[in-house]
Formats: sequence, C-alpha cells, structure tokens
Amino acid sequence: MDELKGRILKEGHVISSEILNVDSFINHQVDPEFMEKVGIEIAEHFKDKGITKVATIESSGIAPALFTAKALSVPLIILKKQASKILNENLYQTEVTSFTTKKSYELSLSGKFVTENDHVLIVDDFLADGEAAIGALRLIRKAHGTVAGVGAMIDKSFQPGADKLREQGIDVYSLAVIKSLENGEIIFE
Amino acid sequence: MDELKGRILKEGHVISSEILNVDSFINHQVDPEFMEKVGIEIAEHFKDKGITKVATIESSGIAPALFTAKALSVPLIILKKQASKILNENLYQTEVTSFTTKKSYELSLSGKFVTENDHVLIVDDFLADGEAAIGALRLIRKAHGTVAGVGAMIDKSFQPGADKLREQGIDVYSLAVIKSLENGEIIFE
Repeated sequence: MDELKGRILKEGHVISSEILNVDSFINHQVDPEFMEKVGIEIAEHFKDKGITKVATIESSGIAPALFTAKALSVPLIILKKQASKILNENLYQTEVTSFTTKKSYELSLSGKFVTENDHVLIVDDFLADGEAAIGALRLIRKAHGTVAGVGAMIDKSFQPGADKLREQGIDVYSLAVIKSLENGEIIFE
Repeated sequence: MDELKGRILKEGHVISSEILNVDSFINHQVDPEFMEKVGIEIAEHFKDKGITKVATIESSGIAPALFTAKALSVPLIILKKQASKILNENLYQTEVTSFTTKKSYELSLSGKFVTENDHVLIVDDFLADGEAAIGALRLIRKAHGTVAGVGAMIDKSFQPGADKLREQGIDVYSLAVIKSLENGEIIFE
C-alpha cells in the first residue's frame, strides 16, 4: 500500500535496528480516514474467505482491525491482555511471551464470542516476532474456531513472525514489508 | 440514544450493583456499524465546538472514539496506560487511581500530539468514578491544550464521575445514563 509506505518514510522514526516508531499516525495518534483505507485494503484481500469475525490484540491493533471488520461487515473481537474481573465464565487463556522484551502476559477470549462456526481473521498493526499473532491463533483454536489468515499493517520481515505463521499454512497479508532498519534507514522489500 | 439503551437492556448483564457487563457489543466484541452510529451521535453534539482532536484512554474507549474522530474529521489520540519504551521525549504523565479498584496506573501523552492550539474532546465507553476522564483532562492541560468536553457511551450516574466533571465546568454528553443497577435491574434516568 503506497500511501502507508509513504507515511512510514515521511513520519516514521527509526529508534533502533529493530524498532520503528509510527506514533504520529498509528500508535499514539491515529488518522481515522487513513486507517479506514487500511481496513478496506486488508478486507479486500480476504473478502472471499468466508470470514465471520475479525480479532485483534489490544490495543494498537484495534483501529485497523475495527475498520477491517466494518469493511467485511462482521464483528470485531478484542483479545484482552489481562483477564478482566467481569469476564470469567467460559474463558480461554494463553500465555504470550514477547521475543523482544521477554515479558509474558495472559491473552484471553470468551468462548461466547468465538465458536466452531467461526472463521476468524487476525489483524494487527505490526508483525514482528509473531508471538502475539500466534497466541491469538492458539486462543481462537482453543475456542474451536478456524483462522482465515493474518492481516498486518507493517511486517518487519527481518523478524521471524510472518515466516512462523506461513510455516503453519496461514495466509499472511501485510501492507508494508520492511526488510531492514539498519543504520537508521527504512528499507522496504 | 434509543438503540444503545435497547442493546444494554437486551445484551447487558448486571454483575453487581456497580458493574454492568456489555462485552457482547462494546468491550470484548464490538459491532462496527453500531459503533459508527455512536461516534456520529457524539460528534453531532460537539460539532460546533471547534474540536481539533479526540482523545481516549486505551483500550475500551478506542472504538467509539475512533468513529467520533472520523465523524469530526480530526485525529484520535490514544492516551497510553504505561509509558512505552519508544515514547519518551516530551512526554507528559499523570497518575490515575481508580475509585473502584484502588489500583493506580500512569497515563501518558506525548507533547508532540497536543499543543496550546488544540481543543480536545475526551471520549470513553463508560463514565463511572470519573478518575480516568479527569486524568485525561489533567494530561491535556499539562500539554497546554484545552478540553472541549467529555462524551461517554454509558454514564453510571450513581457514581460521581459526571458530577465531578460538571463541577469543573466541563460539557458532559452521555448516550445512556443509568441511575441504578440495584437488584439486578437496569434503570435509566
């Protein structure tokens, strides 16, 4: 998606050879009109896959996932990073450990919202080490749903996320694939 | 907003005299088309107030706030509950303590995204004890912005949030005002 690549080049800040800051239009400040185009683009790729729900991990993925769900006319499921006090019956949980930070958290999903009849598209802002997406995948399968694919705005292809998902036969679609952030430079694939 | 009240009555679960679970269409599962109507309704109330940005606290407020921002054609600012590693220069922070849970967290905002030229509308899913909204207000003022008002989907008016904001002269607009959840019953004002 050329508009996304253009904004990454114009507004992105390379923090290190692994971290790209896109706070001005994706993570901290969000441009709603641009984000709607992102959702339409991801939805377009998966429109014939029989998707019944879109899922994302709180909270940076919510904006692109919400517009993807809207474009597909299906509900959005927000996978929670902590088990809420009022979210406890019929609850699936899985531990996710970030490759980068080594920190762990519990991801949770109520079995009321994903069942064996659901074919779920996972949408997130970044695809990096893939642990969050793989955790989401595990959780959807625990709830007996099937996974239609993973849509990401930015795939940092020098990290193993997309490859790990494709090894499992998952259709991964990213709008911008960055192959390197070395020496402060953003290089697309 | 009659459609919201109808869905609260149909899909809401009263967990206690203080807690209402609306996971099926607001917090865990989101209905994008309905949420867009919510955003349009909140935007309509504030449309002549010269709003330059919408702000929300991650993560349940993101969906209604994103559609409010879209309807007003302004950016959305997501106030972060933890200081991100890559969000550190020119950063404002404030501690928020929940009345209900007594737990505290740091809310943060980059000074790059709210300046003295900004007139900010705060949008959230629930208005209860008001501590989160007041924290957001404090943070926007620290960044020298002004606050145009607070829009909430559900105001639990038996809790002090809306009153505390109105005492500060803030325009508070809620789409559904619940005056009691006693005895498992949802009573609107």
